[in-house]
Amino acid sequence: MENLRVIKVKQSVLANNDARAAALREHLKEKNVFFINLMSSPGAGKTTLLVNLIAKLKKELRVGVIEADMDAVVDANTIAEKTGVKTIQLHTSGECHLDAKMTSEGIACLGEDGLDLVILENIGNLVCPAEFDTGATLNLVILSIPEGDDKPLKYPLMFTRGNAFVFTKMDTISVFDFDVEKVEERIRRLNPEAVFFPVSAKKDEGVDALADYLITLVKAYQKA
Amino acid sequence: MENLRVIKVKQSVLANNDARAAALREHLKEKNVFFINLMSSPGAGKTTLLVNLIAKLKKELRVGVIEADMDAVVDANTIAEKTGVKTIQLHTSGECHLDAKMTSEGIACLGEDGLDLVILENIGNLVCPAEFDTGATLNLVILSIPEGDDKPLKYPLMFTRGNAFVFTKMDTISVFDFDVEKVEERIRRLNPEAVFFPVSAKKDEGVDALADYLITLVKAYQKA
Repeated sequence: MENLRVIKVKQSVLANNDARAAALREHLKEKNVFFINLMSSPGAGKTTLLVNLIAKLKKELRVGVIEADMDAVVDANTIAEKTGVKTIQLHTSGECHLDAKMTSEGIACLGEDGLDLVILENIGNLVCPAEFDTGATLNLVILSIPEGDDKPLKYPLMFTRGNAFVFTKMDTISVFDFDVEKVEERIRRLNPEAVFFPVSAKKDEGVDALADYLITLVKAYQKA
Repeated sequence: MENLRVIKVKQSVLANNDARAAALREHLKEKNVFFINLMSSPGAGKTTLLVNLIAKLKKELRVGVIEADMDAVVDANTIAEKTGVKTIQLHTSGECHLDAKMTSEGIACLGEDGLDLVILENIGNLVCPAEFDTGATLNLVILSIPEGDDKPLKYPLMFTRGNAFVFTKMDTISVFDFDVEKVEERIRRLNPEAVFFPVSAKKDEGVDALADYLITLVKAYQKA
């Protein structure tokens, strides 16, 4: 009908976001900067992991961090103080995720020159961040042991979009009912290429393997 | 300017939602049904708490449950099997929260006749569900010990909108760095009327106090 216009707002916005994300990815490749989007539930241990991980990464790579929070600056302060790497805080004014536009602004503000790797700590949320391509080279997803091994069943998009998965707080596994094999199988069913890193950032267990994996990826990307 | 129209989409949608929520609340008061909106992060222990809590509530109240999930039915099956109360599953097709329209449909489908209390288990998310009034009589928010005592600083809207707060997985507090007094103080700063219930659903500690509080509230509401 000529008098009827159907406007698919969400899809149009997402298509627009996809184009921006692709442009950002291309720009970062030209600059030879690898970009990691770190996602998880609130309280899964993103910041604690980052502090430990960055200490290892910065021996080989020049790292910058973008901390996204709705309102707070606690995490950005922790990262900046404990790692000494260049860190900026993005406030989303209540938004539940970052899109490629916000991420581009964050990277422009951080400045990509002189960096090998930018890590974005996304909003703590297993739902919305999975819907928006941020332009990242790699989606790194954390699932903490206390959250339970059923999360891939309940938040399938997040576990489909992730490239690598870190199981944090492994030091508490005796206290919780969490089956690592079962969760890996559930993720692989959604996502056959997924790779897994069980870690305890607190006890510094497993973080070396994750750091080595990321350093290898970044160096291969820079040579390609 | 006459040729410029400013359309506040988000506010218009939210105002519309507020009107629907108010209408639902009025309808439920006429039916004498109390309605609890249970919110938390993924994996904070909503379902485990509910199984234990409902066993106590159903001695005094006729309870119905609405389980909201993006796609899964695992929690609804658990609740229905373990508690025997009337339970329905709402699928949100990827939506990160429930609004008053979805909730009204859920309650209509559950059927409010013959019930004293309906409990909605919202999507696991500390961000979006806080933005939408579901028409609930009480917002019950869970914060689990492993998530950390800094969450009120990072998700202030959720901790402002909650009426009562349950700290779950208290049996694991020796393993985590969580200060109950500090978190209560952080919540009270946002929300002076907040009340607190530390519980371990697994060890059945503190759940009686929460059940008594809710039974007293429902009975007072029904007499008013």
